[in-house]
Amino acid sequence: MAPEPDLLRDPLVAVVAGPELFAAALVAQGVPARRVDWQPAAQAGALASLWCEAVDAANRVALDRVLAAHQILVDVRPAMEVVPGMTRDTVLHAGPPIAWERMSGPMRGAIVGALMYEGLARDNDDAERLAASGGVRFDPCHHHAAVGPMAGATTASMPVLVVENRFAGNRAYSTLNEGLGKVLRYGANSPDVIERLRWFRDVVGPALGEALRRSGGVDLRALIGQAVQMGDECHNRNRAASALLIKALAPEIAALELPGKERRRILAFAASNEHLFLNVAMAACKAALDPAHGVAGSTLVTTMARNGTDFGIRVSGLGDRWFTAPAETPRGLYFPGFAAGDANPDIGDSAITETGGLGGFAMGGAPAIVQFVGGTPAEALEYTRRMYEITAGESTAYRLPTLDFRGTPTGIDVRLVVQTGILPQITTGMAHREAGVGQVGAGIVNAPRACFERALEALVQAGIGRSAA
Amino acid sequence: MAPEPDLLRDPLVAVVAGPELFAAALVAQGVPARRVDWQPAAQAGALASLWCEAVDAANRVALDRVLAAHQILVDVRPAMEVVPGMTRDTVLHAGPPIAWERMSGPMRGAIVGALMYEGLARDNDDAERLAASGGVRFDPCHHHAAVGPMAGATTASMPVLVVENRFAGNRAYSTLNEGLGKVLRYGANSPDVIERLRWFRDVVGPALGEALRRSGGVDLRALIGQAVQMGDECHNRNRAASALLIKALAPEIAALELPGKERRRILAFAASNEHLFLNVAMAACKAALDPAHGVAGSTLVTTMARNGTDFGIRVSGLGDRWFTAPAETPRGLYFPGFAAGDANPDIGDSAITETGGLGGFAMGGAPAIVQFVGGTPAEALEYTRRMYEITAGESTAYRLPTLDFRGTPTGIDVRLVVQTGILPQITTGMAHREAGVGQVGAGIVNAPRACFERALEALVQAGIGRSAA
Repeated sequence: MAPEPDLLRDPLVAVVAGPELFAAALVAQGVPARRVDWQPAAQAGALASLWCEAVDAANRVALDRVLAAHQILVDVRPAMEVVPGMTRDTVLHAGPPIAWERMSGPMRGAIVGALMYEGLARDNDDAERLAASGGVRFDPCHHHAAVGPMAGATTASMPVLVVENRFAGNRAYSTLNEGLGKVLRYGANSPDVIERLRWFRDVVGPALGEALRRSGGVDLRALIGQAVQMGDECHNRNRAASALLIKALAPEIAALELPGKERRRILAFAASNEHLFLNVAMAACKAALDPAHGVAGSTLVTTMARNGTDFGIRVSGLGDRWFTAPAETPRGLYFPGFAAGDANPDIGDSAITETGGLGGFAMGGAPAIVQFVGGTPAEALEYTRRMYEITAGESTAYRLPTLDFRGTPTGIDVRLVVQTGILPQITTGMAHREAGVGQVGAGIVNAPRACFERALEALVQAGIGRSAA
Repeated sequence: MAPEPDLLRDPLVAVVAGPELFAAALVAQGVPARRVDWQPAAQAGALASLWCEAVDAANRVALDRVLAAHQILVDVRPAMEVVPGMTRDTVLHAGPPIAWERMSGPMRGAIVGALMYEGLARDNDDAERLAASGGVRFDPCHHHAAVGPMAGATTASMPVLVVENRFAGNRAYSTLNEGLGKVLRYGANSPDVIERLRWFRDVVGPALGEALRRSGGVDLRALIGQAVQMGDECHNRNRAASALLIKALAPEIAALELPGKERRRILAFAASNEHLFLNVAMAACKAALDPAHGVAGSTLVTTMARNGTDFGIRVSGLGDRWFTAPAETPRGLYFPGFAAGDANPDIGDSAITETGGLGGFAMGGAPAIVQFVGGTPAEALEYTRRMYEITAGESTAYRLPTLDFRGTPTGIDVRLVVQTGILPQITTGMAHREAGVGQVGAGIVNAPRACFERALEALVQAGIGRSAA
């Protein structure tokens, strides 16, 4: 950030934001002028028509639903049993819809791994043939009340977290987090990756489900609220939330009728995984946002998601349409042995956390995250401050001590994004661009401007807002 | 905090810090002068003699030992087996030495409870008679490599945490934390309090000891470093550290050959206690500071402790002498049903955390603590900033994200306290002033100035520093 000007020493100058004519006139009179590069928003007319009481009222309805969400982690079950529309030959993936041909390396790698794990393919070639032949049904997680980090590959026998929103009565789902490094969601599919998924299916999933049912569930609204005060933003920093989740579940896991070494192994795996909570946070945000979707006239964003090729958003008042643009490549810190050029473009449903007021939007309360994604604590605070400019409200559950307990910026408004030119700020993991490698680092990325401009156009075309005079 | 002056609008004035003569002379010439109430430190001569290379060098030796500490929680054992000098009729207590007659209500209440728990007394009257008759041996925890929060009552059969400092090879000890409310350390001694202590002795202590030995120990230097980045100051905010400790121990506890419901009960108790880690942090600080004691010529404070009547400090270069003054009463937030007037003066060995660079010294990284002890996050940051003025160095293990990962202020220098007039800032629990009641709230308190002035005198008398010219 630029140093503050010294008001006592620096000469006072005029600031000109407008036609060069104005600046030139001042200079001709001997008045020093500083030119500022500012232009009115591209879609000023369209934008103007959307600033009206009807849209504001619709947004208040949508926002209130998000803020009122009361999410409880109630169970872990095989996807086949609980995810709506799941079938044996379905492979859910992250982001907006995409065909096999256009899928990026990490998403292909994850899907190959998932098909082998499910016994639908014998090996890599077999899996690729099956995927390319139309022998499996691809669909976005988001079309099934689900969310998946990175590739988001979700198949029938995978155990999924079941999050219930006690306010609206809906449920949301996400797979179990596998840890960092060589894991399916980052596109790795070696035998150890598949073996871990089988252990999830046979041991970890049933154990967590039983522990959750016995405990009566874990209050995620309260837990995330605590974690945010402990420096998590629940996207790329989940250290506190993961420890709090273990604290909540350990008593029941310790009491399960399993061999002692299996109880130890489950808790040791949980303890070794600082991102254990990521998928829980994602399902909690999905559970909060789904009831806010479908409010007629609302310009609030209810989904931001990436499939590694396209970035897509959905808007409350615009039904199930996706507004997409090419996904950008994150800038950040690479693990040893990797460098810029290795990273795939932005991928995963995890931007649901930013959509719900967490992740990059809550970075100001998570200063230590800069050690993982780069930057300084001051910049983290600045990111959060900027997100207030494009959001309709503030969380009533997630409050930032570093901002005197102000609620996190929540409810991205398409109008504000287009008007200010400020783009949603996302903290994200980075996958290797080739199938089979895994995670290479973590960083920061923006949602592409074009998604919001396209959504704005659609809002006007849909007749939302004042009719032009 | 006062508003910043407006440099552009306020007239410039002279600031006069010295004899009135100077200010008067300016005013007589029509120059506006602002008088500042400042006086040289009371013991300016004594102080001057202590600013010398010999003392600086001694302090560097002492400080380096504190900063190099590498504490591991290795075991939990009955005090009788491990605490040096412990006997069946010993009652260790917090703070500097004190006789039964001068003990405050909460300390008496705790000692009565401890004697009943040990089977040394049948009831309250019996215990008071025994204590008053000289039938038990009272001694400060600090004289036995131990520390106890609040009353600090520690007896032979109580299980104690064993913390080993791998750098210096010494060990330190503290009892297990009982939770908040009606607990022995706050002076409560009802049957449920005694019953919990018996469960600690018979079940929890042996289970934690076994889990720690199987796990190979918990690295406290690393754990506290993490917790400080998660908003703990490890005195009155231990939420992160407690969860991290549970995360570390749960796998082994879950594998213990105990009935499932006992495993559940141990972990549920741990999960219910947000101050579980307090006693661990205290023993870790004690283990770090003991090796820094006894450095000839050093003016660093190695102990700050209170017995509910007196506040006492010990100084590295001054042997085992305590420098005491009446303990002050904390200001803070009271639990419902209690109010100012209920609180006992400052009590407990827990100020070892501030002595070791945590607690009030690390508040700037723990903004959410103000919800427990009062104040604002900005004030918490200001407290920490101020503590840098009276400390010889900065922690290499505990770093504050809110201050760009600067190490916490560590190593209180008697010279700096007397010279600046800035007193060590302590976050603390508040006990009811009567025996048997328990905790009434939490707040903030200062170490009394007189302790440091007396220590300064003793340093000069001991011939430390330059001889007067």
